[in-house]
Amino acid sequence: MVDAGKQLINEVISEKLDMEKLGIGPNCTTITVADLGCSIGPNTFYAIQIIIEAIKLKHITKSSESLNLEFQVYFNDNISNDFNMLFRSLPPSREYYVVGVPNSFYERLFPKSSIHLMYSSASLHWLSGVPKEVKDPNSLAWNEERIYCATEEVTKAYSCQFEKDMKSFLRTRAEELVSGGLMMLFTVVRQKDTAHSQTSSGKFYDILGSCLIKMANRGLISKEKVNSFNLPIYNASTEELKELIDEVNYFTIERMEEYSLGSIKMARDTQVVISHIRAAFEGLIRNHFGDEVIEELFEDYTKAYAENLNTFQESSTKHNSTFAIILKRI
Amino acid sequence: MVDAGKQLINEVISEKLDMEKLGIGPNCTTITVADLGCSIGPNTFYAIQIIIEAIKLKHITKSSESLNLEFQVYFNDNISNDFNMLFRSLPPSREYYVVGVPNSFYERLFPKSSIHLMYSSASLHWLSGVPKEVKDPNSLAWNEERIYCATEEVTKAYSCQFEKDMKSFLRTRAEELVSGGLMMLFTVVRQKDTAHSQTSSGKFYDILGSCLIKMANRGLISKEKVNSFNLPIYNASTEELKELIDEVNYFTIERMEEYSLGSIKMARDTQVVISHIRAAFEGLIRNHFGDEVIEELFEDYTKAYAENLNTFQESSTKHNSTFAIILKRI
Repeated sequence: MVDAGKQLINEVISEKLDMEKLGIGPNCTTITVADLGCSIGPNTFYAIQIIIEAIKLKHITKSSESLNLEFQVYFNDNISNDFNMLFRSLPPSREYYVVGVPNSFYERLFPKSSIHLMYSSASLHWLSGVPKEVKDPNSLAWNEERIYCATEEVTKAYSCQFEKDMKSFLRTRAEELVSGGLMMLFTVVRQKDTAHSQTSSGKFYDILGSCLIKMANRGLISKEKVNSFNLPIYNASTEELKELIDEVNYFTIERMEEYSLGSIKMARDTQVVISHIRAAFEGLIRNHFGDEVIEELFEDYTKAYAENLNTFQESSTKHNSTFAIILKRI
Repeated sequence: MVDAGKQLINEVISEKLDMEKLGIGPNCTTITVADLGCSIGPNTFYAIQIIIEAIKLKHITKSSESLNLEFQVYFNDNISNDFNMLFRSLPPSREYYVVGVPNSFYERLFPKSSIHLMYSSASLHWLSGVPKEVKDPNSLAWNEERIYCATEEVTKAYSCQFEKDMKSFLRTRAEELVSGGLMMLFTVVRQKDTAHSQTSSGKFYDILGSCLIKMANRGLISKEKVNSFNLPIYNASTEELKELIDEVNYFTIERMEEYSLGSIKMARDTQVVISHIRAAFEGLIRNHFGDEVIEELFEDYTKAYAENLNTFQESSTKHNSTFAIILKRI
């Protein structure tokens, strides 16, 4: 994702970053950059390097005065993120001051108007939590024996949660971004009017759900445990995203476009898919079901994925696309 | 240490912190505070709370305009510090934005003129490393079979290292502090012209050294390992500190005074002493000698400490005192 976004990052910084408007000058020589949902590296270090190089290049070519710019980079992720691992793998030759920011990005993270550029990659589809209705047996949205958007009611509950979270994300970021500051969001979206179960990621999740049900049928985990487990994930459509950005009304949409990621190629390589799924969900599954289910579950998953490979090639399956959304703080 | 410093922190912030000079006003409502050598909590959270309460009190009583102040707190320690533990034990009801800063405070940590108030407690006696001469068998300063300032040559090598480190500390902090910004340093000092081996902390370290030698004599660790192990610690005198601060010439000394810590009382309680020594040095010893020596070493230490208890009451033993040094950036 970082690689695919490189050209876009360079273009956006070159064309859209107005250093003067941001207040960068003799009295403010520090540029602050934040990665929201940075995980443990090394992707974040690579992305930050691209961003800093692009800003330096712009500064050299466009600026008449030669400021001694300093960079401060805020690495943000949830408190449960392994910040020790992140800090210990920092590039030794970095040209920026490092800070770690442990908190959910659905809450305020930084002081008012303190960040010039925000970046987030492959993080915004993570909700702040599973909508509570889908875990409630008395609700129409109860997601029995499924772990993701299965019925219309469940999808509606997820969509409401996403709307709430995304508005909170946009409003808190608007407070923290300097006027004229940029937000570069890279996220996986689904095509408009496509049911989640018809998307390729929806199918990945459904296979995981059916593996859990089979383990429950074999008596290895309880049905209740499966019923109370749901993925805190929602792949919005670009239309949903655009509507929320417009409604919140703090940002202009500078660019919003698909960029190629080779997702279809990726889906063909079983090992890559399994390792992605495992990296994303292992922690969540361990927390809910315990350590002892993990190995068997992912063995089952590998088999089930291989058996279902053809469903990813069916014409009814809509592959998710990766979108770059570039916002500027009004 | 935090408790003993509370009154002083309140007085200093009330009398010495000039919000206007710091540029706090309608255009800058964020106050930045850094704890240098914060460890994993909870002491740091307690100290930060005292500092923030004092600033808020001052703001309410002295300020004509009612700004909506925000606080950003930088928690700094070495990369090897357990930041995960620190972040997971953050007070839930905190009124500040949290950032973790992983790096040695003998290097630059923050952008230019970005911090209003710095605090450091019980950290400045840790050197950036052991002076290399004391590990070199061909040097006059070779510290054979000892782990701390034993001879005059060894002490000189330690003193040079301290001078180099402290100058680096003061110069880098001077770049980072806003003009008028305060630095509150709380550190253990020794009395002028007292040999390190005559101070109470020197005696603690000497007992630890003799326990290691005894383990080597029993063949549990090698003599070479003991010879190459030295504590990266130096307790400066207030005169040494004052001289370095004056020489660097970036700060005015606003206050420099002893404050009572009840160290003699502490030294009487064996369990407290052992747990302090162990908390401070266990990591260092594990790294150098391996995990397997720890339990036996601290059992030996407990016995040896009890046997040597009277040496701490001898009139020749000078108890270390804790000093508060309050500096203001010119």
